[in-house]
Amino acid sequence: MIEESKATLVNVDLGDRSYPIIIGRNLIKRAGEEISARLPGSKTVIITDEAVAKFHLKTLEDSFKASGVEFNTLIVPSGEQTKRFEIFERLCDDILALRLERGDAVVALGGGVVGDLSGFVAGVVRRGMKFVQIPTTLLAQVDSSVGGKTGINSRHGKNLLGVFNQPALVLADTSVLDTLSPRDFRSGYAEVAKYGLINDPDFFYWLEQNWEGIFSGGPEREEAIAHSCRAKAAVVAADEFESGNRALLNLGHTFGHSLEGAVAYETERLVHGEGVSIGMVLAHEFSEQMGLCPPEDTKRVIEHLKTVGLPTRVDQIPGQLPPIGTFMDLIAQDKKVSRGQLTFVLTKGIGTSYVDKTVNAEPLRAFLEEKLGK
Amino acid sequence: MIEESKATLVNVDLGDRSYPIIIGRNLIKRAGEEISARLPGSKTVIITDEAVAKFHLKTLEDSFKASGVEFNTLIVPSGEQTKRFEIFERLCDDILALRLERGDAVVALGGGVVGDLSGFVAGVVRRGMKFVQIPTTLLAQVDSSVGGKTGINSRHGKNLLGVFNQPALVLADTSVLDTLSPRDFRSGYAEVAKYGLINDPDFFYWLEQNWEGIFSGGPEREEAIAHSCRAKAAVVAADEFESGNRALLNLGHTFGHSLEGAVAYETERLVHGEGVSIGMVLAHEFSEQMGLCPPEDTKRVIEHLKTVGLPTRVDQIPGQLPPIGTFMDLIAQDKKVSRGQLTFVLTKGIGTSYVDKTVNAEPLRAFLEEKLGK
Ligand SMILES: NC(=O)c1ccc[n+]([C@@H]2O[C@H](COP(=O)([O-])OP(=O)(O)OC[C@H]3O[C@@H](n4cnc5c(N)ncnc54)[C@H](O)[C@@H]3O)[C@@H](O)[C@H]2O)c1
Ligand SMILES: NC(=O)c1ccc[n+]([C@@H]2O[C@H](COP(=O)([O-])OP(=O)(O)OC[C@H]3O[C@@H](n4cnc5c(N)ncnc54)[C@H](O)[C@@H]3O)[C@@H](O)[C@H]2O)c1
Ligand SMILES: [Zn+2]
Ligand SMILES: [Zn+2]
Repeated sequence: MIEESKATLVNVDLGDRSYPIIIGRNLIKRAGEEISARLPGSKTVIITDEAVAKFHLKTLEDSFKASGVEFNTLIVPSGEQTKRFEIFERLCDDILALRLERGDAVVALGGGVVGDLSGFVAGVVRRGMKFVQIPTTLLAQVDSSVGGKTGINSRHGKNLLGVFNQPALVLADTSVLDTLSPRDFRSGYAEVAKYGLINDPDFFYWLEQNWEGIFSGGPEREEAIAHSCRAKAAVVAADEFESGNRALLNLGHTFGHSLEGAVAYETERLVHGEGVSIGMVLAHEFSEQMGLCPPEDTKRVIEHLKTVGLPTRVDQIPGQLPPIGTFMDLIAQDKKVSRGQLTFVLTKGIGTSYVDKTVNAEPLRAFLEEKLGK
Repeated sequence: MIEESKATLVNVDLGDRSYPIIIGRNLIKRAGEEISARLPGSKTVIITDEAVAKFHLKTLEDSFKASGVEFNTLIVPSGEQTKRFEIFERLCDDILALRLERGDAVVALGGGVVGDLSGFVAGVVRRGMKFVQIPTTLLAQVDSSVGGKTGINSRHGKNLLGVFNQPALVLADTSVLDTLSPRDFRSGYAEVAKYGLINDPDFFYWLEQNWEGIFSGGPEREEAIAHSCRAKAAVVAADEFESGNRALLNLGHTFGHSLEGAVAYETERLVHGEGVSIGMVLAHEFSEQMGLCPPEDTKRVIEHLKTVGLPTRVDQIPGQLPPIGTFMDLIAQDKKVSRGQLTFVLTKGIGTSYVDKTVNAEPLRAFLEEKLGK
C-alpha cells in the first residue's frame, strides 16, 4: 500500500509463464501482501545471504508475519562461491525437510547469487516449486531476476548447471539499493549501460546525462531500472530458451566470463559487472579492429564507463592474470559456443550490436594477446 | 533398416516438445542411424549401468561407430541407489569435462534408474542438453521413458528432486528385454496392467488372455508396449506438468512408494513394480472397503497379478516392516500430497479409476493397520 501508486509495473510476456515485475521504493514492506494475494495459501521459504539478511531480512519477515504468510528462512554465505553444488544440495535437502510442497514458494531475497541459486533449487525440488524473486542488487533488479535463467557454477565454468525457471513475481525494491556497496552498485550499472549499447542508443545517451540521479537514488533510478527490465523482457519474450537472439544480452559477457574465470571468481579482484564493463569495452575494441565499430563510439563507451567508476581495461584487475591459452580455453568453454564455432556479440557502434557466429580463433587470440600485454 | 517395416511408431504430442517413440526388435542396431538423422552433428554421451553395459553397450557403440556418431560412455552402478545426489553431481561434472555443448545429446541406455538420472543430468547441464532414451527394461519402455519426468531420490523420499525434461527420441528395442531377469520383467508388467486398470478394461481383459506372449517375446509384446505408450502419451499430452489428470498414472503408486520407502529402496526386498502391484491391490481393496469397487473386480485384479507372478500382499515382502506411523509419514511426504489434503487414486472397478482429493487420514490408517497385520 505504501507508495503503491508510485510503483512501476513491467510485464514479462511469456504465455502461461508470464509474470509481473513491480518496481518501486519500500516494496519489501508490502511483500507479504503481494505474495498472499498472488499465491494464496502457499507456504514459503526465504533464501537470503548473510549480508542481505543483516539489512533487510527483518523487514521482509515482518511483512510476511503481518500478512499471515508462513515462512522459514535459510541463510547462505554471501559471495559468488555460494553458487556451488554443495550449497545447492543442502538447500534442496533443507526444503524437503521443511516438507514444503509443489504449490509452496521459494522466495529469493538477495542479489544475483541468491537469485540464481534459489531459482535452480526451486526448479528442481519436487520438479518445480513456485518461485518469487526479491532482487536486492542493481544487477539482480535489471538483469538476473528477469528471464528465468538460474544456476550454479562448476569447476569447469560459470553457470554451467541450472534450469530455465520463470518466477511467479519479481519485487524490485529500489530503496534496498541504498545499502549496497558503491562497488556492487557500479557493477549492476554495467548491465544497465549494456541495454543502451545493445540496441538502444538513446537510452545510452540518456544515461550519460542522468547517471548521477540513478546512483544517488533519484527518480531516475526507478526509471532506469524499469527501462532495463522492459528491454530484457522484450528480448526474453522473443527467445525464452536462448536459442537465438537472446544471445545479444551477452554483449561483453564472453570476454567478461573469461576474466571472471581467470581470477577464479574471486570477487575481491573482479565482480561480475566489472568483468562485463571491461568485456563490453573489449567487444567494441575488437569490433573496431575488425572495421565494424567507429573509433569515436568505442571512445565514448570507455568515457562513460570510466566516469561512473567502472574499470575499462584488463590491467585494472589486481594481481597476475593467467596466460593467453587459459583465456582461449575459457572462451571456448563458455556456453555461448555452438558446435565448435565461436559465437560473439560484436557491434557496429553504440546501440547496434549483433550476434556474429563466424568469429575465428586466430584474430581473437592476437587481439587478446595485445590487450593482455603479452 | 533391420526390420524397419515392423517397427511401431507412437507420437507423443506436446507441441514443440513432441517426440516419437519407436518400438520394435533390434532397434539398438540402428540407433546410430536414427540419432544421426534426427540430431545431425550432435556429439553424444552414453550413460548406462553395469548390468546393461554387459549385455547391450557394445551393440550400441558399434551402431554409433557405423553411423559416425561421436560418443563417450559413462557407466554407473546398477540399482535404485544410483539415483542419488552424489552420482548426479559426478555425471554433470564428467559431461562438462567432456566439453559437450547444449546441442549435444545425453543418451540413456538402461532402465528407469538410468533414464531418470540421465534425464535430470541432461536437463541441467548447460541448462538443458538434448536427450535420447533407449529404455532397456519393460518398465522403462512403457512408463518411465514416456512423459519427461526425470529425477533422483532424496533421503526424504523417492524422486523428490528432478525436472520435467522431454526426450528428443525414444527407441524401445523389445528384444533387449530378453536379457532382463524374470523379476524385473514382471515388475514392468505391473505398469502395463496399470493402464488397463486406470481406464481401459478391454486392455486388461486382453492382458488376461495374452500375457504369456508378452513374457515370451511374441508379437503381443510389441503390441502391449505400443498400447501402453499410447495410453501414457495421451495422459501426458493432456497434462504435461502434472497439475491434474496425470495423477491417474499414480494408481497404486502412493501405497507403492510408501512400501518402497519402508524397505529403504532395498531392491532385494522390493522392486518398484512389485510395490505398484501390491499398491494397486491396496487401492482396489481400500476402494472396495469404501463401497466404491465391486469385490469381484478386486478379486479379478489379484488373480491376474498372481498369475503372472507378482506379489499382491504386504506380507509377501521379506523382512520386518516399520510401524504404521512410518507409513503414514511416507504417504504424507509423497509428492501427490497437495496442501495437506491426501490425494489418492481410487477406483470404481476395473478400468474406472479416478483422483480423489478428499481421502481422510483416519480410515486410511485403520485400513493399513489391518493390512500390516498390527
Ligand atoms: N540469471 C541471470 O540471468 C544472470 C544475469 C546476470 C548475472 N547473473 C549472476 O548474478 C551474480 C551476480 O549478482 P550480484 O552482482 O547481485 O551479486 P551478489 O548476489 O553476490 O551481490 C553482491 C554483494 O552484495 C551483497 N548485497 C546484496 N544486496 C545487498 C543490499 N541491498 N545491501 C547490501 N548488500 C547487499 C551481497 O551479499 C553480495 O555480497 C553472478 O553470479 C552472475 O552470474 C545472473
Ligand atoms: N520417470 C518416470 O516417469 C518413472 C515412471 C516409473 C518409474 N520410474 C523409476 O524407474 C525406476 C525403476 O526402473 P526399472 O525397473 O527399469 O529399474 P532399473 O533401471 O534399476 O532396472 C532394473 C534392473 O535391470 C537391469 N537391466 C536393465 N535393463 C536390462 C536388460 N535389458 N538386461 C538385463 N538387465 C537389465 C538393471 O541393471 C537393474 O539392475 C525407479 O527408480 C522408478 O522411480 C520413473
Ligand atoms: Zn551479466
Ligand atoms: Zn511406476
